[in-house]
Amino acid sequence: MVTQLLFMVLTKLKMTDCLGDEAGDMTPMDLYEKLTSQGDTVRTLKTEKAAKADIDAAVQLLLKLKVDYKQVTGQDYKTGCPPSECAVSQDNGPAAAAADGEDMVDPWNVSTTNAKGVDYDKLIVRFGSSKIDQELVDRIERVSGQKAHRFLRRGIFFSHRDMHQVLDAYEKNKSFYLYTGRGPSSEALHVGHLIPFIFTKWLQDTFDIPLVIQLTDDEKYLWKDLSLEDCHRYTVENAKDIIACGFDINKTFIFSDLDYMGASPDFYRNVVKVQKHVTFNQVKGIFGFGDSDCIGKIAFPAIQAAPSFSNSFPQIFKGRKDVQCLIPCAIDQDPYFRMTRDVAPRIGYPKPALLHSTFFPALQGAQTKMSASEANSSIFLTDTPKQIKNKVNKHAFSGGKDTVEEHRKYGGNPDVDVSFMYLTFFLEDDEQLEKIRQDYASGALLTGELKKRLIETLQPMITSHQERRKQVTEETVKQFMTPRPLNFNF
Amino acid sequence: MVTQLLFMVLTKLKMTDCLGDEAGDMTPMDLYEKLTSQGDTVRTLKTEKAAKADIDAAVQLLLKLKVDYKQVTGQDYKTGCPPSECAVSQDNGPAAAAADGEDMVDPWNVSTTNAKGVDYDKLIVRFGSSKIDQELVDRIERVSGQKAHRFLRRGIFFSHRDMHQVLDAYEKNKSFYLYTGRGPSSEALHVGHLIPFIFTKWLQDTFDIPLVIQLTDDEKYLWKDLSLEDCHRYTVENAKDIIACGFDINKTFIFSDLDYMGASPDFYRNVVKVQKHVTFNQVKGIFGFGDSDCIGKIAFPAIQAAPSFSNSFPQIFKGRKDVQCLIPCAIDQDPYFRMTRDVAPRIGYPKPALLHSTFFPALQGAQTKMSASEANSSIFLTDTPKQIKNKVNKHAFSGGKDTVEEHRKYGGNPDVDVSFMYLTFFLEDDEQLEKIRQDYASGALLTGELKKRLIETLQPMITSHQERRKQVTEETVKQFMTPRPLNFNF
Repeated sequence: MVTQLLFMVLTKLKMTDCLGDEAGDMTPMDLYEKLTSQGDTVRTLKTEKAAKADIDAAVQLLLKLKVDYKQVTGQDYKTGCPPSECAVSQDNGPAAAAADGEDMVDPWNVSTTNAKGVDYDKLIVRFGSSKIDQELVDRIERVSGQKAHRFLRRGIFFSHRDMHQVLDAYEKNKSFYLYTGRGPSSEALHVGHLIPFIFTKWLQDTFDIPLVIQLTDDEKYLWKDLSLEDCHRYTVENAKDIIACGFDINKTFIFSDLDYMGASPDFYRNVVKVQKHVTFNQVKGIFGFGDSDCIGKIAFPAIQAAPSFSNSFPQIFKGRKDVQCLIPCAIDQDPYFRMTRDVAPRIGYPKPALLHSTFFPALQGAQTKMSASEANSSIFLTDTPKQIKNKVNKHAFSGGKDTVEEHRKYGGNPDVDVSFMYLTFFLEDDEQLEKIRQDYASGALLTGELKKRLIETLQPMITSHQERRKQVTEETVKQFMTPRPLNFNF
Repeated sequence: MVTQLLFMVLTKLKMTDCLGDEAGDMTPMDLYEKLTSQGDTVRTLKTEKAAKADIDAAVQLLLKLKVDYKQVTGQDYKTGCPPSECAVSQDNGPAAAAADGEDMVDPWNVSTTNAKGVDYDKLIVRFGSSKIDQELVDRIERVSGQKAHRFLRRGIFFSHRDMHQVLDAYEKNKSFYLYTGRGPSSEALHVGHLIPFIFTKWLQDTFDIPLVIQLTDDEKYLWKDLSLEDCHRYTVENAKDIIACGFDINKTFIFSDLDYMGASPDFYRNVVKVQKHVTFNQVKGIFGFGDSDCIGKIAFPAIQAAPSFSNSFPQIFKGRKDVQCLIPCAIDQDPYFRMTRDVAPRIGYPKPALLHSTFFPALQGAQTKMSASEANSSIFLTDTPKQIKNKVNKHAFSGGKDTVEEHRKYGGNPDVDVSFMYLTFFLEDDEQLEKIRQDYASGALLTGELKKRLIETLQPMITSHQERRKQVTEETVKQFMTPRPLNFNF
């Protein structure tokens, strides 16, 4: 028995020899479980009256794990008290990520050195979320009775928190609501900005549920060199593009923070509740804020958190505070909601569930997230068919070979080819997409031909978006943005 | 010439030999002026080709002054760039004050070891405000055509910022508005809480101007172990006592932060503007906030700042942002408004002017500010005539002698006698008050007799307050607290 236990100890010692390097990769929950099990080991050794050296070695490892745990979570290990999600967040602050030389992902910066883009599997581990696997996709289809959206089929929405819980409740006729948003930093949106909205519209249509869309004009004022008036003007312009995605006016409330904060005492009450339960230390860990940041930035995360609680919208939910929220968003927004999920139970609210998307690549390649301020970095919703053609032909990073001969011989690389990536987002037909992939990889399809397919996909999509946007009057925007009951009975 | 300059250098050296101890007492502006003048001295010495030793000594002093300046203001000295008011604030953070062993005065703590109370002259120097001298009192009488309020005549409002500017403008028919407030941390108010309201009502009557009263229920929620509902309930109860002071409903707007933030996009816009222009470093210096404080506290000062700007009340000022604000408040609130005055010009608003009052002493003595949570620490607005009598007789700290014989022989000390202090606040007649002072000091008036005078002053005052409060209906409170135009044309 003692020998067996000693073997366990040695195995653990070996595992943790390199913990100093690996601690950053381990989630606090991993460490917590390791610690708990090591505690058991020490107790068993003592009960078994094992050799002193063995007990000492096991205790030494226990202490080392405690130090690692403290380092990773900022908290002391306590038996029976698993790490809070905020502790996860502290580990995943931007500073930590940058120091590791890993992909950098926070609400303001996304960067990677890999042409295929960010390593999303690693991000799931680092952020402590769950992968959207085939089983979950199948379950969504089963529960909704709809074919899964291409973003789900193709792993564009790749990560989640508590989605199974949402579906469990939905199967028991407990409804939920959707919350997504955008920071209006310019008038012009590019196609990448549409991803969360296209998917959210699909969720709304599929599950027939209310949707709230937050436009964080206050955030943009705090972070950018813009006036309040500019930020608010962008909000209204962006709302038009969002409405043009086809949201149902009877099921959707769009709001500007600058307006809604001043129109809803219930919203402000939730903001203050969150602000009371989050410390500067926490937002420092989660968002990397520093002493020279303005107090507006420091307090802002509570404003992005508040729409996760249904009683922030009494006009929609009749004051109910228990309606489950589901947030579809790009993974860079997750820090806000890790914080929100940590606070929620402490102020008596359910934790919001999440569905995370990958980033939409810039035309120049997947190494960076696109910028709304660089006209050639993506296809904008205001681009003409000719501009689309020129941009794709001129700027879309190609995975093809240098000459036609080489390309025919060796084939192209669809994994780094931006035109192919864009088709993954926008071409609905799975078989066509797979054929394009195979033909491009084999060399049967040339880069020019691949680009032509993308151009033919984007041109009608953008044109019809522009036509729908033209139909959106100031009056329609005003209706969408007026706090009011929606067509649901809560 | 060189000799003369050398003498200057030596004088300065002597002055600053003890600067290490005194730097805390010098305002940043003092240091700035010293530095500027020392810079001139060095330049003159160089121009005059003075002896190297003399120049070196002068340069050494200049460097030492720069170090002191940096220490006191947290900023580097720059020629032609005087310290900002925020730098003043940083010097006057609670930590700095406490470390000096001086009186402690910040919005949450007031303490002194002196039975006469806080040393207000020192406070004026430390806070960088101006004394309300006889000349200013005379001028207020001249401009208003009214006898100065007893709080002005007796130095209870003792300090100001920019009051002369307010009067200059008023003489040119440029009006201003009043802003004061209260943190509603309990249902019961004591007489000390009335001081700013009694004086504000006098100012409103005298100058015929609008008044806004902020009830910071959000602040109390953030700082205390209270629910949002409790804080809001206290707000409504406190508003009744405030209204009972006799404010004109056509000229007064009372608001709860929790309500008004959610009712006025303009108010929130000003909050965000302030929050963008104040860093965590600054609120750390001014208020002593730390990393483990919640983000609500850190952001709150902007909410107390925002009513200083007239466009926070578009319903009253028709969107005008240039109406001068005058804030009557206890001196412990000054840190909020030092911060506000520092931000104002950077966001295009006039700086609010201020009138500061001393603290109302506890019955037990002037060493501490009163506490609303200790029933015997003061006279409450809900006390019966009998309770008033008992409290004064039992708890009011006496400056009298131990026996009647001794008292008759040596006289009492009115400077530390709380009954006399209370009479200073509430007995209108100057001659009577002076006679009481003399008789008490001479021993002609016994402690029991002095207390009787106070009881006779307080009983009818409290009774009539209670009668007026009874007249205040929920409907009246609602009217006062509804955002609406007042009887003024802006």
